[in-house]
Amino acid sequence: MADQIIVNDVGPRDGLQNQARVLSPDQRVQLVKALLAAGVRYVEVGAFVSPKAVPAMAGAADVLAGLRDEDGEFSVLIPNQKGYELARDAGARAVGMVLYATDGMAQANVRMSREQANEATEAILERAREEGISVMATISVSFECPFDGPVDPGIVHATAERFLQQGVDRFIVADTIGAANPRQVSAMMREMVARHGAERLGCHFHDTRAMGLANIYAAVEAGVRYFDASIGGLGGCPFAPGASGNVATEDAVMMLEQMGLVTGVDLPRLLDAANLARELTGTAPGGRATPWMQRHFARAANA
Amino acid sequence: MADQIIVNDVGPRDGLQNQARVLSPDQRVQLVKALLAAGVRYVEVGAFVSPKAVPAMAGAADVLAGLRDEDGEFSVLIPNQKGYELARDAGARAVGMVLYATDGMAQANVRMSREQANEATEAILERAREEGISVMATISVSFECPFDGPVDPGIVHATAERFLQQGVDRFIVADTIGAANPRQVSAMMREMVARHGAERLGCHFHDTRAMGLANIYAAVEAGVRYFDASIGGLGGCPFAPGASGNVATEDAVMMLEQMGLVTGVDLPRLLDAANLARELTGTAPGGRATPWMQRHFARAANA
Repeated sequence: MADQIIVNDVGPRDGLQNQARVLSPDQRVQLVKALLAAGVRYVEVGAFVSPKAVPAMAGAADVLAGLRDEDGEFSVLIPNQKGYELARDAGARAVGMVLYATDGMAQANVRMSREQANEATEAILERAREEGISVMATISVSFECPFDGPVDPGIVHATAERFLQQGVDRFIVADTIGAANPRQVSAMMREMVARHGAERLGCHFHDTRAMGLANIYAAVEAGVRYFDASIGGLGGCPFAPGASGNVATEDAVMMLEQMGLVTGVDLPRLLDAANLARELTGTAPGGRATPWMQRHFARAANA
Repeated sequence: MADQIIVNDVGPRDGLQNQARVLSPDQRVQLVKALLAAGVRYVEVGAFVSPKAVPAMAGAADVLAGLRDEDGEFSVLIPNQKGYELARDAGARAVGMVLYATDGMAQANVRMSREQANEATEAILERAREEGISVMATISVSFECPFDGPVDPGIVHATAERFLQQGVDRFIVADTIGAANPRQVSAMMREMVARHGAERLGCHFHDTRAMGLANIYAAVEAGVRYFDASIGGLGGCPFAPGASGNVATEDAVMMLEQMGLVTGVDLPRLLDAANLARELTGTAPGGRATPWMQRHFARAANA
């Protein structure tokens, strides 16, 4: 069981929110179903945000409705109390919220201080616990911030302590701009696992500087067993300059499986989902190892 | 001193040998000089092989002659006694030879068994030691072979033991087809460093499955302090199907420096060398982190 890894695909939310082409709720349901067919059980399927601010996420309730009969662990991003209520009323069982390791990023993203964002999230966390809804808190720019520079790891540790004590279901350390190196990740996550155990921890890496897989490896060896990734490498962050490229789910799954860990994901079917993401968006870059995978599976099919 | 890393750029040999466009010795000297200008001190500058079999390496003696007044540690690849003599007569101070972890790869590459290749290398090693020339032995397909499949690490360890005892100056573990995962690399190199110390060890990774940087990280944490890499990600292996893409020197240097290790390499100047490689060959893909580096250095220049 220690070698089981949860891969949470954030493509249908984090991946799609910046695309030039806006997908309909039906198309987003189709993408999530392709991920489920490949064995990905955890998917971030949308966000309850203003459809004016983020048109790509309009109709999140329709996405949830379209997935009502599917077997999977679906979460939705919410920015505030109103988003929480909309998500709850649409039947969401898990919500994701964003915390900030710096004031600069909190201001750029939600026009709050870091501490104001912490408090807003605490208020929602309390309601969600009363109402039986799971909460995942992701702390953004955990290693480096495009506005405030290098981040004191003590801030990330203090925030983890605070929210894990208050009963958050998962605390996710995010390298929002893909700036972390694997030594930093190793130090941060070893300390965090030592203090809290790995069960409620997770990591979220971007591949901006090509260190995404190295960082996943470092976190795995530190004990982390939950990773965000994005099908086809879709995504980025609209408010963080230079934050292109979530780690592609297919790259992460390939490496983890090859290392002997168990993701439950079927790679050829995952490539089908990546192809669908490319068809639908016109832009999904695909994993960095995709050319190798395509040759490999073509040979296997011909053998 | 433990944090000093030697980066050996193999672009002018491993990188160029498969290019459609054949570079003149003068162009190759120009590329090596661009690497030296960036602070790369170790460069594999050519091969003394049949110019009929490998036209891209013709004129290796002219390349060495063109570098006579340069300050750097230059090596050349040699396949046999004849190549050794040509290299020595051209003034080479260090030669590289290839060993094999499998019979399949030895047959495909040099039509010998693994053991015949070992013995041929031993004979040259003996002469080179008498004549004061350094010898680097690279064991290819150390993790997986395109012909014989997964490799028994015991073979790699036994070969290392044998050649290190016989006085080889460096023993380089190569993942020729980019198949290794970082757990394998960690296990292999920790064991090797424990047995022999790190001083005469090195690693050579390809990025075929996007795990090149993860593997360098794993080897660094195992104690390895010498890495091959190829400017602009030039290269591959003509006899190993699917072996595209040496790890790009610029990606490796970026990660190592960011982890606090010291390479002595200046990244903006290294990108100049990568641009030259692209101009000369028309094909150098560039490092995977190059788009980020270009934005980063442009911002730094404007700041």
